[in-house]
Amino acid sequence: MFEEQVRPLIVAKAGGAVLRSRVLRIASMSESDVEQAVAPVYTAFKNPRTTILGAPGQVELHLTATGASPEAGEERLEALAAAIRATLPGRVYSEDGRELPEVVAALLVERRLSLALAESCTGGLLAARLTEVPGASAFLERAYVTYADSAKSELLGVSPAVIEESGAVSERVARAMAEGARLRARADLAVAITGIAGPDGGTPQKPVGLVFTAIEGAGIDRVRRAHFLGNRERVRFQATQAALEMLRRGLLGLPPL
Amino acid sequence: MFEEQVRPLIVAKAGGAVLRSRVLRIASMSESDVEQAVAPVYTAFKNPRTTILGAPGQVELHLTATGASPEAGEERLEALAAAIRATLPGRVYSEDGRELPEVVAALLVERRLSLALAESCTGGLLAARLTEVPGASAFLERAYVTYADSAKSELLGVSPAVIEESGAVSERVARAMAEGARLRARADLAVAITGIAGPDGGTPQKPVGLVFTAIEGAGIDRVRRAHFLGNRERVRFQATQAALEMLRRGLLGLPPL
Repeated sequence: MFEEQVRPLIVAKAGGAVLRSRVLRIASMSESDVEQAVAPVYTAFKNPRTTILGAPGQVELHLTATGASPEAGEERLEALAAAIRATLPGRVYSEDGRELPEVVAALLVERRLSLALAESCTGGLLAARLTEVPGASAFLERAYVTYADSAKSELLGVSPAVIEESGAVSERVARAMAEGARLRARADLAVAITGIAGPDGGTPQKPVGLVFTAIEGAGIDRVRRAHFLGNRERVRFQATQAALEMLRRGLLGLPPL
Repeated sequence: MFEEQVRPLIVAKAGGAVLRSRVLRIASMSESDVEQAVAPVYTAFKNPRTTILGAPGQVELHLTATGASPEAGEERLEALAAAIRATLPGRVYSEDGRELPEVVAALLVERRLSLALAESCTGGLLAARLTEVPGASAFLERAYVTYADSAKSELLGVSPAVIEESGAVSERVARAMAEGARLRARADLAVAITGIAGPDGGTPQKPVGLVFTAIEGAGIDRVRRAHFLGNRERVRFQATQAALEMLRRGLLGLPPL
């Protein structure tokens, strides 16, 4: 958490040759799915070499090329990066060292869009990750952590009848939370998350790890049901990561996950 | 972030002797202050041995004792732990592996107190840390992330005149945020944080790292001005850690930090 961020551009001399490296980041896709898709691509390259690093909610492809000059190294990196991008269209969210919250924040600032958040099971983690980015006040005026049903109704105007009928963890409630947050914050768009982080609270119909995410506003209207595996911490982190990736794809007009 | 928690009770055989260990955790105190206070105590003990581990917002004392039996080892650990507790009264928040959010959550549940949160510079990180604890819904119904002045006024009822006069980063606004959060959430008590996380936004009078924290309700009425060092991430984390430690001390009737 407190490591200094390492920028991916490394230049080193190795026996007259120059080493260049680049990290391609992909969110909300499993390591095995990424590997299956890109292995035929990167194994065809002797230079750069590629290492895959999996983390919850994220996969990193570390590319390292050698070249006679920095430009030659960069050219090789770009050749493989382009092939990977073509294999997984729209999935690489960063090649410049930035993490997903930074990329999403930059998109919002660039488009001058304001964002409101409504979080249930993630309990403020999405807001915390987005406000970790310096200058987040340019797009975030407020966030609602509506843990209890009463908070969802009072703060976001979610109808108690809807909660009663569909359950707090449902597509309808996720949609209503997003709409309520957007309207009450007078924001351009809103993201809402409701789910079951565990370890308790799961049922056969709604197991631990079930999370609904809704995005509404600025021409985006998307909702997603996902089932994340792992403990409470992992479920919550993956839920925020998926919400950020959904938002990135929505802002860029990419098809839903 | 995703490491499995290691419980501090380790039993191992070393040449017929038994090893026992315990971790004493102290929040919101620098490693050098802790070392200065406890070094005369622990250096007087040949067994257990003590290692100090510093992290932002937290210091850990790792005690390892050898004994002829588990009981003998525990007795030695307890002798040193008692001496350390006496040297830093009320400062050791955990000896059983629990982190600060878990300790505070347990106190709230035990006393059947409900908590509301109002966060500005920490942007939801305090809510996220407290809701990481399973069962947090027993005490947390909602949290407000009021990043902008407008959100502080609309959601918490902080008077725009007070913000104008004292500034959003001030003791008065911290107090008003806590009071507003407690009343509007109908909670027993509330914690509010307002500060300058940086890297921008600092002035000579109100530098980056300046944070006001207020606690109000359940017989507690405390406010604290602190200046945290480090980058945005460190300032924010330390602010949540200090708020949790303030809350723990308030709940236990210990003097303010």
